[in-house]
Amino acid sequence: MSETTDIVRLRAFIARSLVVCDMPGPDAERVAGLMAQADLMGQDGHGVFRLPMYVRRIRAGGMNMRPRLARISERPATALIDGDNGMGHLVMHHATELAMEKARGTGVAWVGARHSNHAGPASLYAMMPARENMIGLYLAVGSANHMPPWGGTDMLLSTNPIAVALPSRDFPPIVLDMATTVAAYGKVKTAAQRGETMPEGWMIDRKGRPLTDPSRSSEGFLLPIGGPKGYGLSLIFGILAGVLNGAAFGKDVVDFNSDFNSVTNTGHVILALDIAAFADPDQFRAEIDAVWRQMKASARLPGVEEIRLPGERLHKVTQARTEGGIPIPAQLRAVLDAVAEELGVAPL
Amino acid sequence: MSETTDIVRLRAFIARSLVVCDMPGPDAERVAGLMAQADLMGQDGHGVFRLPMYVRRIRAGGMNMRPRLARISERPATALIDGDNGMGHLVMHHATELAMEKARGTGVAWVGARHSNHAGPASLYAMMPARENMIGLYLAVGSANHMPPWGGTDMLLSTNPIAVALPSRDFPPIVLDMATTVAAYGKVKTAAQRGETMPEGWMIDRKGRPLTDPSRSSEGFLLPIGGPKGYGLSLIFGILAGVLNGAAFGKDVVDFNSDFNSVTNTGHVILALDIAAFADPDQFRAEIDAVWRQMKASARLPGVEEIRLPGERLHKVTQARTEGGIPIPAQLRAVLDAVAEELGVAPL
Repeated sequence: MSETTDIVRLRAFIARSLVVCDMPGPDAERVAGLMAQADLMGQDGHGVFRLPMYVRRIRAGGMNMRPRLARISERPATALIDGDNGMGHLVMHHATELAMEKARGTGVAWVGARHSNHAGPASLYAMMPARENMIGLYLAVGSANHMPPWGGTDMLLSTNPIAVALPSRDFPPIVLDMATTVAAYGKVKTAAQRGETMPEGWMIDRKGRPLTDPSRSSEGFLLPIGGPKGYGLSLIFGILAGVLNGAAFGKDVVDFNSDFNSVTNTGHVILALDIAAFADPDQFRAEIDAVWRQMKASARLPGVEEIRLPGERLHKVTQARTEGGIPIPAQLRAVLDAVAEELGVAPL
Repeated sequence: MSETTDIVRLRAFIARSLVVCDMPGPDAERVAGLMAQADLMGQDGHGVFRLPMYVRRIRAGGMNMRPRLARISERPATALIDGDNGMGHLVMHHATELAMEKARGTGVAWVGARHSNHAGPASLYAMMPARENMIGLYLAVGSANHMPPWGGTDMLLSTNPIAVALPSRDFPPIVLDMATTVAAYGKVKTAAQRGETMPEGWMIDRKGRPLTDPSRSSEGFLLPIGGPKGYGLSLIFGILAGVLNGAAFGKDVVDFNSDFNSVTNTGHVILALDIAAFADPDQFRAEIDAVWRQMKASARLPGVEEIRLPGERLHKVTQARTEGGIPIPAQLRAVLDAVAEELGVAPL
């Protein structure tokens, strides 16, 4: 049995932790809201779970608590934001609001960011436009390299994710949020903690042999989805979110799990597309409902109980946690209590 | 030994075949140029190989030879084109030129199309912006459903491809052009023609068992890359290229391999992104060269001779065929001769 908390308490705890780290109150509220939202949505590896690492980086001088976000370049439908080494949540919330504002006029907007940091789950930002009759698409350079180019052994690529969110009417929004690797690195860490074996296909070692013992994960690397295809996607997303924005890519990516004071220069992209530029938004939303119905009604393979759509689990977890609370496992609770004590703030 | 032809002769043959099918000369030249370009690039399943099927569809009244392309809606950075059931090459060439023109001003542009048709390889259109210091991204609803939703058995999805092209300086452009399935359907057909066995992982049958005999392909379906992830990508790309544009998706997709006169209402999307809105284009191109060098220099797995980048094979084949000619296998030659005779035009 896990203890549970609710989003109000969780947000307040994160906010007061950030404020004593010298983050201005409104910024702390914003970051805390986005982090707690990640937990509410079931993205357990990207919410308050990350707070101890963020605090460690902040105290090591690795993140700027009072960044001045700047527009390096701008066109009617594009912008490049310099995040001034602020928390990624602040940078990408700002970038996404700007993209939505631009897309309302131009139909589509693409806003890139550099000198940012880890921003939590990709879906957080893709879902913002989807709440306002837009489609959101988010790309990022992952915050540590876990994958070589296809056929190689030098870890030059990350799990570079893509998230896309589309609004619906009666059904939940469709939300795809995926790494370009078969398994995200967090899944490997979870398997190691639980003493479980990984399925073949997640990782290989430096000789190309399947690696199924997660405690040996440092001896190998993650495999991309579809072999060279996932490698291609990771490479392209990394160039669009990293190289194009003047952000870190390849050898320049700082492993934020082991280096707490180097500037990560993390890059991201948000695209907002105004549905009304193509179709009546109500009609479009009804058609997304029809897509739900059509997929759900498919005949199923033996043993399959239900066809799922991307975003379905996220929606169910959000509902369940809104009603029943957000579980805080004992191990996480202990770590958060230690952070509270270190910072001298009231615990969760 | 295959006979070879060159791009000039190939283009002229395709153009005269389309002209006698009542396509206006300039349109026929354009389509022929794009189709022959596909062959030059090594996209053998998407070039002149398709001519017999196109001619069959045209003669069955399934495509409009004199379409009036219309802008259904427009914003500064977006447009929706109605292709009036014209050939997809015409529609998407027009859409891509429009996207590039818009992106020069706004920084990015997204142009969707409906009432289009099969347009050849995705990379043709993604590469157009890449020749002018832009990045191109193309999505399409495939022209036949070969995949169910994950866990299902109703074929509601296609191999919905993505192509992205990025310019470089001294190295070839990076060009990713991939189906969201492990194997494109053309590979299954090729394996069947050659009497080869397919590897496990390409297809399963309706009981979920691996299907490795390509002559039994109608008893099963293609598998997406990364399981539910590739399903999610196919679904999202299909919605963006299909549903949003008012084009066919899901049950409404017409199988253009077996139905030659129904309007396919094919949907596509092209996005053009002007590099100069984010970075100095020369500097960006030099950085893409650096990406090439970094990936190429990676240590390799045992047995791997070379690390490849997406677009490398395409570039090498283009160079080889520009110098040495485009191979026309005897079987294809016979089919093209039959088309020439049927149409009363000079053979290739």
